[in-house]
Amino acid sequence: MNGAESLVSTLVGQGVNVCFANPGTSEMHFLAALENPAMKSVLCLFEGVATGAADGYFRMAESPAATLLHLGPGLANGLANIHNAKRASSGIVNVVGEHATAHLKYDAPLTSDIEGLARPLSHWVRRTDSAATLAGDAARAVTAARPGQIATLILPGDTSWGDAGEPTQFPIELPVRAAPPVLRVDHVARMIRQADGPVLLLLADKSCRGRGPELAGRIASATGCRIGTHFFTNRIERGAGRVTLERIPYFVPAAIEFLKDFRHIVTVETGEPIAFFSYPGSPSKLQHPECQIHSLAEKGEDGCAAMEMLLDALGASGAQAQYQPRIETSVPHGALDPISIAHALAAAIPENCILVDESLTTGRASMGLTAGSLPHDTMQNMGGSIGFGTPVATGAAIACPDRRVFCLVGDGSAMYTIQSLWTQAREGLNITTVIFANRSYQILKHEYAAMGFGAPGPKALEMMEIDKPTIDWVAMAKSMGVPGISVTTAEHFHRALANSVREAGPLLIEVVL
Amino acid sequence: MNGAESLVSTLVGQGVNVCFANPGTSEMHFLAALENPAMKSVLCLFEGVATGAADGYFRMAESPAATLLHLGPGLANGLANIHNAKRASSGIVNVVGEHATAHLKYDAPLTSDIEGLARPLSHWVRRTDSAATLAGDAARAVTAARPGQIATLILPGDTSWGDAGEPTQFPIELPVRAAPPVLRVDHVARMIRQADGPVLLLLADKSCRGRGPELAGRIASATGCRIGTHFFTNRIERGAGRVTLERIPYFVPAAIEFLKDFRHIVTVETGEPIAFFSYPGSPSKLQHPECQIHSLAEKGEDGCAAMEMLLDALGASGAQAQYQPRIETSVPHGALDPISIAHALAAAIPENCILVDESLTTGRASMGLTAGSLPHDTMQNMGGSIGFGTPVATGAAIACPDRRVFCLVGDGSAMYTIQSLWTQAREGLNITTVIFANRSYQILKHEYAAMGFGAPGPKALEMMEIDKPTIDWVAMAKSMGVPGISVTTAEHFHRALANSVREAGPLLIEVVL
Repeated sequence: MNGAESLVSTLVGQGVNVCFANPGTSEMHFLAALENPAMKSVLCLFEGVATGAADGYFRMAESPAATLLHLGPGLANGLANIHNAKRASSGIVNVVGEHATAHLKYDAPLTSDIEGLARPLSHWVRRTDSAATLAGDAARAVTAARPGQIATLILPGDTSWGDAGEPTQFPIELPVRAAPPVLRVDHVARMIRQADGPVLLLLADKSCRGRGPELAGRIASATGCRIGTHFFTNRIERGAGRVTLERIPYFVPAAIEFLKDFRHIVTVETGEPIAFFSYPGSPSKLQHPECQIHSLAEKGEDGCAAMEMLLDALGASGAQAQYQPRIETSVPHGALDPISIAHALAAAIPENCILVDESLTTGRASMGLTAGSLPHDTMQNMGGSIGFGTPVATGAAIACPDRRVFCLVGDGSAMYTIQSLWTQAREGLNITTVIFANRSYQILKHEYAAMGFGAPGPKALEMMEIDKPTIDWVAMAKSMGVPGISVTTAEHFHRALANSVREAGPLLIEVVL
Repeated sequence: MNGAESLVSTLVGQGVNVCFANPGTSEMHFLAALENPAMKSVLCLFEGVATGAADGYFRMAESPAATLLHLGPGLANGLANIHNAKRASSGIVNVVGEHATAHLKYDAPLTSDIEGLARPLSHWVRRTDSAATLAGDAARAVTAARPGQIATLILPGDTSWGDAGEPTQFPIELPVRAAPPVLRVDHVARMIRQADGPVLLLLADKSCRGRGPELAGRIASATGCRIGTHFFTNRIERGAGRVTLERIPYFVPAAIEFLKDFRHIVTVETGEPIAFFSYPGSPSKLQHPECQIHSLAEKGEDGCAAMEMLLDALGASGAQAQYQPRIETSVPHGALDPISIAHALAAAIPENCILVDESLTTGRASMGLTAGSLPHDTMQNMGGSIGFGTPVATGAAIACPDRRVFCLVGDGSAMYTIQSLWTQAREGLNITTVIFANRSYQILKHEYAAMGFGAPGPKALEMMEIDKPTIDWVAMAKSMGVPGISVTTAEHFHRALANSVREAGPLLIEVVL
């Protein structure tokens, strides 16, 4: 077989069965090798869709997908969502096509320093030497990606078309997540027993799903500590019958207010709370200056094992968690505002819904009001690069074809990677995209004020308004084969959401604000 | 004044009067400083539009614009068109917002290695230390960009909001382009006089406009050499009454055929002809193996001065160029194919049109057939990263508001940076976007065959077809406020083009193939 065939065969052998692809000339052999029936190829019309979809895929499947990108500029187009994926601990195997080795010295137009572009946002980068070593490199790339890392494999054309010999089988190396040392757990248990004020148990990553929230709930019952997450988490399992985690607010003054009484924060798979941005005269650290941070599980360690050990150390293995009761939200009526929007959403969320949240200003009220909805997953933007929502929804729907995805996204954010809609239509994905059309970078008006400027001047304001021209979201959806509907009342919004759950395939709902 | 005000004031003082902006929180002070009445801010809804527009602006204005990008990921989104701009020798001053210096150590979500991302595609990178040194850094950035280079200035929040003191005026440093050494010119003159077969004078960059083509035409008249360009050139002034330059074909076999008789190629502001991609068993160099390359002017040297010196050395200062006669193309009728499309275009090109060409497969017949059209400029993609056309057209129209821009783009290419249409509508730009809707990555089918595979298998073919779903280009244009029309015959295409010239503002024409 040739190198490309051995690459695809190795990816498949390593359990990578999906490739989000935006191919070019240098990847023709890889395209040919995609005839391998065990590999599903998903065509994306922009690389940021491919890399964001790989992020969403990993968050649901907990196993990496591949992307196929065209030389340095193709990788560059995917980098913003690779940044988000890296911050979300999502593993991806990026396959980046490259000129044949002998062609590089001529500095042809598409030549660039691919390693240089890849390194700042990859954990693992390798340029394959030859067709014969490609399978081994591919296996190492998957091993690097599997625990939640970015692996970038650069594929010169000649390694694709050269002879790779007979296929080699490489064993799958599953990552092992370490439990924390007993001494550290004992320290945390002792601190909790001795603390004379409220303690916050701060969860992230895998501790926010599976057994994690329940374990946290049992610790809360046993000790009276509160349990929460940062504002952004890669995936949380929540809703009725599960344990609800509080959420540190986004804006600095609200976050400081939320945290002001805690003198101890116990972190699980994460670090201390940090302001998203810095502002003149405003702190970066959000906790009280006297608050101590105690790591129970570092990033990458097994947070659930750590919480079980903590329960043991506290002598509280029998503690019961408090479960979130089901809250039947009645269908709201009348004007659309953050509260009526959240109520419409809470009433419409179907069981097992995947809720991708890039709604910024509009959606910030939603999370509190959906805690008692049917059980669902939420996913947020861990890296802060906007244009995250619609690609991540696309990848999540590929990973979980039987679940409905609600993708909440501001109009400003949606425009960065709007090409996602086309892939959603092509693959018939069960995604309801909700565009909050406030026709502005509304978040920037808050941020402008937070910088101490008050109201923006006319030219600054122009840079925050996206109402000239108004984006016609129904036409946008239609242009890429997705049905669309525009709603102006809360009941209409709810009905559109509920209807979208009953019909297969994608829908876009424009919420006119 | 604060740092941001001193930055904008310095940019303006250095002759940078346009900023293509996609701002975020860390750039609020810059936004406030944009109230400076001498700076025009153009809002782009995706960073690849901003950087591509800056490329198009430079090609027409021959003076750099600024971009405003939001941290590492914002820069990353702009990199593909920065790559294209770098390859086109277009100068850009990228201003990249960054966290305040004191916030960096907390590794907040949007933190990344901005220098690492910038360096592979920038000639000049600097992180500003303080508000006080920002003006000086900005002046140096403009000086670096002005000769056609990528300058990236990283702007930590605190340098924006800190006190910069009184404004300093920095002198504008205009670049000087050196003439070639006399000995080199004499060598070329001697070679031309002694050559016993056809010689090709190969022009690029600034030698393809202004006095360049005419000087080349005079050399051709005096010596019998042929005059041409690579397949891609950043801007050529051509059409009736000017001197026509031949074009080396794109595909390797055709390029080899075109070049096979030349034993000498004289290069002006460029290097030898190189294949765009490499193919198994196919050469990278396109000229005959015995062909010698003679540099008359290196990249960055003054090609027009070099050609004048060559005319002197040849004793041919009195030689007259052959001017391209006007060819009145009659309006074509019937089916749309590459020839009828080229004829419709040739008949419709208005005087001083700027023709941005990212048409790949469909438009390749156009260039030969538009040589006798009214005088116009053409611009091609020098870096090969697709998604170049609509942003470059946007920037060219900002630079030249009184000229009509025809932007020819394949449907696959247009999708990468389609957000350009919104900026075109917002600014009322005189751009006619022509989408060649062949509903496939048609170029990849050629390339697949060129790799020696013959017809692609079903899964590979799926990755080259973008017809499921069909993109509705009129709806796409409408969604962003641009009127659209779909044409299916040559006469309808011609009429739509001609009508677009008579009305101000943007129009999109979908050419259904």
